Amino acid sequence: METHVTLDHGSGGLASRELITSLFLRHLDDPLLHQLEDAAVLPAQGGRLAFSTDSFVVDPIVFPGGSIGDLAVNGTINDLAMRGARPLCLSLGLILEEGLELMQLEEIIRDIARACSRAGVRVVTGDTKVVPRGKADRIFINTSGIGVLAAGVEVNGSRVREGDVILLSGTLADHGITILTSREGLEVEGNLASDTRPLHFLVQSILGEENPVHTMRDPTRGGLATTLAEIARDTGLCMEIEEAAIPVRPAVRAACELMGLDPLYLANEGKCVVLVAAEDAPDVLARMRATEAGRESARIGQVTARYPGRVVLATAAGGSRLVEPLAGEPLPRIC
Amino acid sequence: METHVTLDHGSGGLASRELITSLFLRHLDDPLLHQLEDAAVLPAQGGRLAFSTDSFVVDPIVFPGGSIGDLAVNGTINDLAMRGARPLCLSLGLILEEGLELMQLEEIIRDIARACSRAGVRVVTGDTKVVPRGKADRIFINTSGIGVLAAGVEVNGSRVREGDVILLSGTLADHGITILTSREGLEVEGNLASDTRPLHFLVQSILGEENPVHTMRDPTRGGLATTLAEIARDTGLCMEIEEAAIPVRPAVRAACELMGLDPLYLANEGKCVVLVAAEDAPDVLARMRATEAGRESARIGQVTARYPGRVVLATAAGGSRLVEPLAGEPLPRIC
Repeated sequence: METHVTLDHGSGGLASRELITSLFLRHLDDPLLHQLEDAAVLPAQGGRLAFSTDSFVVDPIVFPGGSIGDLAVNGTINDLAMRGARPLCLSLGLILEEGLELMQLEEIIRDIARACSRAGVRVVTGDTKVVPRGKADRIFINTSGIGVLAAGVEVNGSRVREGDVILLSGTLADHGITILTSREGLEVEGNLASDTRPLHFLVQSILGEENPVHTMRDPTRGGLATTLAEIARDTGLCMEIEEAAIPVRPAVRAACELMGLDPLYLANEGKCVVLVAAEDAPDVLARMRATEAGRESARIGQVTARYPGRVVLATAAGGSRLVEPLAGEPLPRIC
Repeated sequence: METHVTLDHGSGGLASRELITSLFLRHLDDPLLHQLEDAAVLPAQGGRLAFSTDSFVVDPIVFPGGSIGDLAVNGTINDLAMRGARPLCLSLGLILEEGLELMQLEEIIRDIARACSRAGVRVVTGDTKVVPRGKADRIFINTSGIGVLAAGVEVNGSRVREGDVILLSGTLADHGITILTSREGLEVEGNLASDTRPLHFLVQSILGEENPVHTMRDPTRGGLATTLAEIARDTGLCMEIEEAAIPVRPAVRAACELMGLDPLYLANEGKCVVLVAAEDAPDVLARMRATEAGRESARIGQVTARYPGRVVLATAAGGSRLVEPLAGEPLPRIC
């Protein structure tokens, strides 16, 4: 019995077949995937489609709160959810480094299966490549996804208006700080864990019949600062947020202070920013809080005309400062 | 001005944005992609959907006849086409190694744009990650694709019957031998070039109104031998092929002999095997030959009950031998 991934596993021949049937299909139990055809054929869908792709190269590949497998499933689900779509199915593209332990690979496939089952989403088609030792770093995962939009649902930056309220679905920076401290092997007071989770249940519950949502974004790479800066730039409006209103776990805050990092720029993998008209904000916030993913949702600011195209933070100390988008990369391979 | 990919380009911040707008969007000129939202929203489609994914890790990344960019577009188009679908759109997931030359990246993006334009397919959503030097090999590309099936089109292994004729859309082994000789720096008589090309126009022309096609496969990794062995195993029937009927370019044959390789096991990136009822074969073959991708199509064998689940080759010398599927990987990173 093999214990590690070999180049043979990427041959497209018998060894590939063996890996697929004995490991992948055992955990990813979907009838379409089992056909092992070149493409999956899905029934006709009655609505517009959302289509998204994301590659995951996170280091370490397993961390408190999840693994690259959870991220790969939840990340693409969330990209679909941010357009208001109900995620339908995923593709799974693996690039494996020769020498990866098969037990480690199986653990990740199991995480993928669990994340899919939790989210009610299927992996229906896949592909596996193997590259020689030293030509990749253990495992890279691409997931692409198809979702379906209900009639009339429009969620995009062009709907944002002055006076809109900015809601955030929970605490900031949990994923980014967890990856960083695990990578550096830092011991931190309190428990840090990634917030990786699917957001489509929360999204479906706030869209309701009438869709009060103007735009939604999940602040992953670049964090909340960059996400809001993009919305500000694209709309020409000012995003005013209040530091004191932004939920950050004490352990996360302490670790950020220790490392000299600003939670506004750290990645989140299970949070969204939701912009709605002021009159809809109380109801939407209540609905967000009623979901498992949004229990700690908060109103963190509003859209004004004060500094067109910019983000302004009212600091806890009583001052205010402009928030720039992330320029470079303080934290490679965060997802 | 930067001349090489840096970790900043994968930050999700300003440097990422700059790479996307100044390089990717300049060549990939699609209105959906330009929105830079988390997911693309496509109009409702009136039929069943085909969904496929493929990652490309080929080495070298540029070779006679194409590049990793052409492969990535044509490969996923062909996976969709093999189910009888009309390809609609692609996603583009890039994993870049820090230090990749931006000019080289631009050349590949240009190849992607040209291949899309030739095929009439759009890149509508994308993602870019950068990993530190030594953690990947220049560039890996994932493309996933969505296609639409016309009403009634069913193309899969379960339709294969004893008596079916096996057609091949052109010469064998061009891609595999080209990659191998370029990687090894071998000088070979005659011009070798990859056969990377889209097959959906050929497929649409043979499906016609009545769909005579029982199954289709593109013999990529593992070559024709492995593809036919899979059909034989899945159907329990015998695939009998004739060596003399299989078109192989003289330069390819010479290079294979020089390197001790069997063209039956080498990858193709623009060929398909088509199984049809004997009475439909002449018409389907004529239609294949009338397309640009299928000018050298040939009838190479038939489906019998002689050795159930096996592939048998009638050799040019007059004997016959069983053809096994590829076991391991003689040729890593062929696509």
